[in-house]
Amino acid sequence: MSLIDSLSLRYDGKKLMVLDQTQLPQKQVWLEANDPNDLVGHIRELRVRGAPLIGLSAVLCLANLMQTGVSEKEFEIHAGQLRASRPTAVNLMNNLDRLLAVSRSTFVAADILREALAIVKEDEELCLKIAKNGAALFADGDGVLTHCNTGGLATAGVGTALGVIREAWHSGKRLHVYVDETRPLLQGGRLTTWELSALKIPYTLLCDNMAAILMREGRVQQIIVGCDRIARNGDFANKVGTYGLAVLAHHHKIPFYVAGPYTTIDVACASGADIPVEERVASEVRGVKGSFGSVEWAPSAAPVFNPSFDVTPAALVTGWILDFGVFKDAKKMIDALEKGRGV
Amino acid sequence: MSLIDSLSLRYDGKKLMVLDQTQLPQKQVWLEANDPNDLVGHIRELRVRGAPLIGLSAVLCLANLMQTGVSEKEFEIHAGQLRASRPTAVNLMNNLDRLLAVSRSTFVAADILREALAIVKEDEELCLKIAKNGAALFADGDGVLTHCNTGGLATAGVGTALGVIREAWHSGKRLHVYVDETRPLLQGGRLTTWELSALKIPYTLLCDNMAAILMREGRVQQIIVGCDRIARNGDFANKVGTYGLAVLAHHHKIPFYVAGPYTTIDVACASGADIPVEERVASEVRGVKGSFGSVEWAPSAAPVFNPSFDVTPAALVTGWILDFGVFKDAKKMIDALEKGRGV
Repeated sequence: MSLIDSLSLRYDGKKLMVLDQTQLPQKQVWLEANDPNDLVGHIRELRVRGAPLIGLSAVLCLANLMQTGVSEKEFEIHAGQLRASRPTAVNLMNNLDRLLAVSRSTFVAADILREALAIVKEDEELCLKIAKNGAALFADGDGVLTHCNTGGLATAGVGTALGVIREAWHSGKRLHVYVDETRPLLQGGRLTTWELSALKIPYTLLCDNMAAILMREGRVQQIIVGCDRIARNGDFANKVGTYGLAVLAHHHKIPFYVAGPYTTIDVACASGADIPVEERVASEVRGVKGSFGSVEWAPSAAPVFNPSFDVTPAALVTGWILDFGVFKDAKKMIDALEKGRGV
Repeated sequence: MSLIDSLSLRYDGKKLMVLDQTQLPQKQVWLEANDPNDLVGHIRELRVRGAPLIGLSAVLCLANLMQTGVSEKEFEIHAGQLRASRPTAVNLMNNLDRLLAVSRSTFVAADILREALAIVKEDEELCLKIAKNGAALFADGDGVLTHCNTGGLATAGVGTALGVIREAWHSGKRLHVYVDETRPLLQGGRLTTWELSALKIPYTLLCDNMAAILMREGRVQQIIVGCDRIARNGDFANKVGTYGLAVLAHHHKIPFYVAGPYTTIDVACASGADIPVEERVASEVRGVKGSFGSVEWAPSAAPVFNPSFDVTPAALVTGWILDFGVFKDAKKMIDALEKGRGV
């Protein structure tokens, strides 16, 4: 029986399978993720990626582990191990906290599984709400620029930023999507192009450094990106390259939106300065690697700067598109969140 | 006898050889460029690249052709063919015009060769003057960001922007160079890293979309780039990605300099709007290709935006570094040029 069957996540109550996103679009390879050690490896190597998806796969992995019999202590150790697999994305921490709240009150496999499945189900619904809220902001004929991949691959549902684009398109707005290739790991060039092709939404792929001239030529009316963590003041972390786009949008007076579920908000984080940013290995910048092949063009000893994310200050954001509304003011966003959740 | 022996150009009076820049840094392969058809192919495929170098290789090729006997009409046809090989870089047109002025007054092989060699010799001297003029602008300890390749490979001398960095370094200023990889053809990742390694100047390679966060972190004190054509009003064309850097520099209040020889100024061009920009093939953006290998990661039918250059408006330029001085005002630059050359 299939309990979950999304674009990148499958769970039948016994076996958790994840789509290897490093092999797309050339190959669709599904990997087992029953062992938390394996899942940590998948997350570290970006075989499993996308802030919402990471959080979902982690809680499913833990809930599944309970089916096979595991002590409370082992459960906690694995939770801690998964928590540390990606320091920037906060959905992971938020989802794990929610699961741990259940496991610490009732260490019963069925209850924990029910909660994990509820978290996944909720993600699907959150995606739909984000999509509806955001789609209203787009006009017929808009050129929309996006960065990285924020679609069905990155979530259990229609996605965040790409879900908004999809919803606007399905509601009859003829958009044209401009896709940043998103070096070094090419999530735009490999994954967003693949999703847009499947959705039959017209797009154009470009190198990241071409976005500026595209804006100057007046071909971009909206910019929308996803996020890995939103601080209380509205600063947010996202795939490296996002901050530069926000500056360019500001210069060209183009609206710049960030889309995500409430689980991406870190209420304990005052500002972007408190968001940790992972620096990754040099080989990613010296070349490229995937199921398409592996090449290295830079001198093999070339020193490299390779932050996985960057932080965009709230002042450059036109609006935060969330499942519980679109906000032009970060304070109102936090107030609505805390009020809505009875904090 | 070697008449010319630079990093990427060799001429012994009979045979013109060019270094295949698409094969660096893995392989150093020298190619014959005696036939103008071959040279056009080399330029189109970026085996020969860099605005100054293109102009120099073209006049040497024509002058060498004269040694083997060629009619005045054939000479003019080949000159026209070379002129069309790269529409954006104006050094090519300027150098060809200078050679044609000689060939049309005296169609004598020795005179034409003398002029071609003088143009190459002049380029070396222009590079040194640019380097001296620009080096004074840098302070000890500066982080300097550059884009594309503007060194010995791109000229007959020490280079333009990279020549300035080299001169500042040799004059005792401890700089750190940040090298944009420069997608799609990776001139930064392949060529600038290679030149800086050989010069033993410390550098860090980054993906183009990481330049913004580097600036925000306060690690960049100066930005310097080369140019393919400067208009009368100071607007200039350069490798795609330059315009975005200029906007980012403006936002972060970082000085943004452009360096080039006077042959890069197009006095017949009023503004950047008059500079033609070549759009190149989609395969360059769908993957990478070189002597390091060839891979394609995007869907094979992915539509692509691939302008080879972009135009940066004068308002974003802190100063133009030329062989005849550093100018903060484009009008003064043009006045000095036209006065100095008796126009």
